[in-house]
Amino acid sequence: MFTYACLVSTQAQVLYDFAAELGNNELSIREGETITITNQNIGGGWIEAKNSRGEVGLVPEDYIESACARWISDNRCETSSNTSNGNNPWTVFDNNASGGFSNNWAAQPEGTETGKTSSNAWPSGGHGHPQAYQGPGAEDDEWDEEWDDVKSSGGYAESEAGEGGAINRGGAHVGSHHTDWTYTQDGEVGPVWAYPDYQLDCVVADPKKGSKLYGLKSYIEYQVTPTTTNKPVNHRYKHFDWLYERLLEKYGSAIPIPCLPDKQVAGRFEDEFIKMRMERLQGWMTRMCRHPVISSSEVFQLFLSYKDEKDWKMGKRKAEKDETVGVMVFSTIEPEGLPDLDLIEVEQKCEQFNRFTRAMDDGVKDLLTIGNEHWKRCTGPLPKEYQRIGKAFQNLSSVFTSSGYEGEAALTDALTAAGKTYEEIAQMVAEQPKKDLHFLMETNNEYKGLLGCFPDTVGVHKAAIEKVKEADKLVAAGKITPSDKTTMSKRASTMSYSLQAEMNHFHSNRIYDYNRVMQQYLEQQVKFYEMIAEKLRHAHSQFTTM
Amino acid sequence: MFTYACLVSTQAQVLYDFAAELGNNELSIREGETITITNQNIGGGWIEAKNSRGEVGLVPEDYIESACARWISDNRCETSSNTSNGNNPWTVFDNNASGGFSNNWAAQPEGTETGKTSSNAWPSGGHGHPQAYQGPGAEDDEWDEEWDDVKSSGGYAESEAGEGGAINRGGAHVGSHHTDWTYTQDGEVGPVWAYPDYQLDCVVADPKKGSKLYGLKSYIEYQVTPTTTNKPVNHRYKHFDWLYERLLEKYGSAIPIPCLPDKQVAGRFEDEFIKMRMERLQGWMTRMCRHPVISSSEVFQLFLSYKDEKDWKMGKRKAEKDETVGVMVFSTIEPEGLPDLDLIEVEQKCEQFNRFTRAMDDGVKDLLTIGNEHWKRCTGPLPKEYQRIGKAFQNLSSVFTSSGYEGEAALTDALTAAGKTYEEIAQMVAEQPKKDLHFLMETNNEYKGLLGCFPDTVGVHKAAIEKVKEADKLVAAGKITPSDKTTMSKRASTMSYSLQAEMNHFHSNRIYDYNRVMQQYLEQQVKFYEMIAEKLRHAHSQFTTM
Repeated sequence: MFTYACLVSTQAQVLYDFAAELGNNELSIREGETITITNQNIGGGWIEAKNSRGEVGLVPEDYIESACARWISDNRCETSSNTSNGNNPWTVFDNNASGGFSNNWAAQPEGTETGKTSSNAWPSGGHGHPQAYQGPGAEDDEWDEEWDDVKSSGGYAESEAGEGGAINRGGAHVGSHHTDWTYTQDGEVGPVWAYPDYQLDCVVADPKKGSKLYGLKSYIEYQVTPTTTNKPVNHRYKHFDWLYERLLEKYGSAIPIPCLPDKQVAGRFEDEFIKMRMERLQGWMTRMCRHPVISSSEVFQLFLSYKDEKDWKMGKRKAEKDETVGVMVFSTIEPEGLPDLDLIEVEQKCEQFNRFTRAMDDGVKDLLTIGNEHWKRCTGPLPKEYQRIGKAFQNLSSVFTSSGYEGEAALTDALTAAGKTYEEIAQMVAEQPKKDLHFLMETNNEYKGLLGCFPDTVGVHKAAIEKVKEADKLVAAGKITPSDKTTMSKRASTMSYSLQAEMNHFHSNRIYDYNRVMQQYLEQQVKFYEMIAEKLRHAHSQFTTM
Repeated sequence: MFTYACLVSTQAQVLYDFAAELGNNELSIREGETITITNQNIGGGWIEAKNSRGEVGLVPEDYIESACARWISDNRCETSSNTSNGNNPWTVFDNNASGGFSNNWAAQPEGTETGKTSSNAWPSGGHGHPQAYQGPGAEDDEWDEEWDDVKSSGGYAESEAGEGGAINRGGAHVGSHHTDWTYTQDGEVGPVWAYPDYQLDCVVADPKKGSKLYGLKSYIEYQVTPTTTNKPVNHRYKHFDWLYERLLEKYGSAIPIPCLPDKQVAGRFEDEFIKMRMERLQGWMTRMCRHPVISSSEVFQLFLSYKDEKDWKMGKRKAEKDETVGVMVFSTIEPEGLPDLDLIEVEQKCEQFNRFTRAMDDGVKDLLTIGNEHWKRCTGPLPKEYQRIGKAFQNLSSVFTSSGYEGEAALTDALTAAGKTYEEIAQMVAEQPKKDLHFLMETNNEYKGLLGCFPDTVGVHKAAIEKVKEADKLVAAGKITPSDKTTMSKRASTMSYSLQAEMNHFHSNRIYDYNRVMQQYLEQQVKFYEMIAEKLRHAHSQFTTM
């Protein structure tokens, strides 16, 4: 038992350099410096501190290590290391092969071809995912910029450091292993994940502006309500980002973790931007909820249903110290009575998935390109043209009115009405993409992100296959034992089952998603054209029958 | 009594130079030369002749004057000059004012402002109409090129001279006056033309390729069937053009005669071009039929219901010698108990019409510009985009098919069907303008032509008003008598009534036409959008409901 909050002001050690921004009430600090915490209740990842020269200002709480933080960190390390490995079949391998997967395969001669691929084989926490980051420098900005902050006029937005990152770098690492990740053989499609009886879902809603630093900074907080507890929890964008990082680090080798919605979208109105981000966070969360492995993971459950601030902070730190990340996650897989696969078969499956995801990636990108152009046309030149047609009819009508000829009114009224109808149609055309194309684009955009993660996931498997192929040579050279080789084959087989289960999960979701989005798209398109026809029918009826 | 056809071969005088085209069996002839007609039955405006050097070849029959033609011409002149002026009120003026309108108003001092406008006041046969000709050189080509000819591979098309023009230039001119052109005061709208009880109409149909010169030249002949006789007559484009010239010459000062459809349209397939020309000739003929003055005119009746070739040729020559052309046509107007108008009132009416036609001209041109752009979009980028959307869906469907996942077929079938639906929609979009926009454009194009004639028609009236304004000065200077002045005022009044009747005719037709074309346009638009909705509804139904 321990309490999280340190209630007394205390000395703290600076872990990293931090340069204060002018006019932001910040305090510059240097690594190794000792500072005194003067106010711990600032919030938003900031504390007030005083340096040895008596200067007082705000510093990022993760840049310093107070006695309190250190104690918690130590305490967690201890409890973490106490976690039993239980009946995890991979622990056998951990004991036999000089400290686990990475050590085993890293032990082979450097400079060989397989040596080269081996550096790809175990991406540490999936940082190799090309789609996971939005551009150069994005990773560095992660904790320095708060992307969901609404910039205040004071210009405080650029320099805040969030919690979490620093502690992760400073703390001790002990992994906790789980045995809740299994798959079974499905009669039709092959291996599938063990799906829970209850399908988790959540609602991301009610974005609210919050503020911190005495109102100097504001941010958006979303309410996330899981269908399990039905109790809402609040999260900022950077919390979602934190969750993404954890999932990527832990599961990225086995499960493609789609990237979060873009951190920033240029040229958007604030409200529209918030709405779209919320919608995309909802989409991302729903996808995560649907994944049996992700949704049942401790970190995901924490995110959805932490009890209070203390629970959240503790859970966060625990998750950050999780060592069962990268390929180690395969050690948590429990194959349920499935036979070992032949190497050729594993390779074939791998290639098939690779081909499919690449082809689908091309198809999705193609659709997005076309959809984008269509969007531009529908919101740009097309409604303008309908508007001009409408104006031309109305203009002609007013010219006709000026004729001074009797019996003109019936025509001019009808012509004006027809003109207005085309103006209404212009409006409808311009607004339609938001009602149909939008969802088609969003779904395909999501899939583009998801498919972008596959090459890395598949890459992990390919590297494993290469290793097994090289195994005979390594045995002959006395670098590994025949028993090591058997273990490696078993692992490749397990990884292949995992990939198959993941692909089957992907396929069933894809079929569901595309069915749904196409239905939605076509339904809205039908309504759209029906409404236009109805409007025009009414316009038509106003002309005199002759 | 006389017979038209000269049955014996005879000597003929060459009226104009004609240069033979190489390889066309033609014979070069020079003005004043005497030739011998060797075959009169070639047809198509050509006869075979022999020159003094014994060379034989084809020459345009209108370039020569045979004894036979001369006799007919003389004969007609005589009968024409015998035509009684009867009780035409304008003959009073003809006798009083030194030989008619033009002589009277031309008698005023040159160089004055009114002198300047006076040159506009009496356009000889409406040749000043800016819309009547299609471009520089078009007038010169009139009888030298046969615009409706389908060029034969022999290249004979450029040099044929048609009948009519030459004889018109050579013959004596005696006008024949009619008294069948009246208007009455309508309770609501003011002066209107006296409309016939029976509304004439005609059908232009059945374009057939004919040939002449032993098959060396081919042309298109249209069948024109008036609702009066229900007996079809055949006419080539150049006959329509001839009719247009006659109507313009005779009625152009009082009635805007819309130009014929373009003589040539570049880049069209032959069949499509013929079809469009026929449609436009139909539109033009219908408009002429609807006009009570035009439709009851001798030349128009001749065109619609000549009994045989002889009747046609005789009627043509008579029409070409008609001298009641230009402003003289107003002398045939019989005002039915309408009081003389005040000059100010005449001027106001004139201005009102001018403003209206200009405004409508602008409105119509605007609509045409927009319609053209819309046409381009509907037949160019828009269907291409729908096609690409369709292809993208189908492409995605075939990628999905390659997944190897069970239970894929329902989605891929539906997705393929949706893709095909969008390809069908692309086709529909591309073809739709022909079904609706086409008629809207054609009608507005017709009105553009018609409105283009109004400035000249109005100009004639304005010039007359100016003359009347100057009359006091002229009387004081002893250039005209007070009685002349009264006559001029009366004429301006009559012309104003005529213009009012014409505008009322224009307005009632315009209301009818725009009502009809808008109904047609909207009806087709409704059908179009309904059909798209229906197609999409069907595509939607193929997706699995979840």
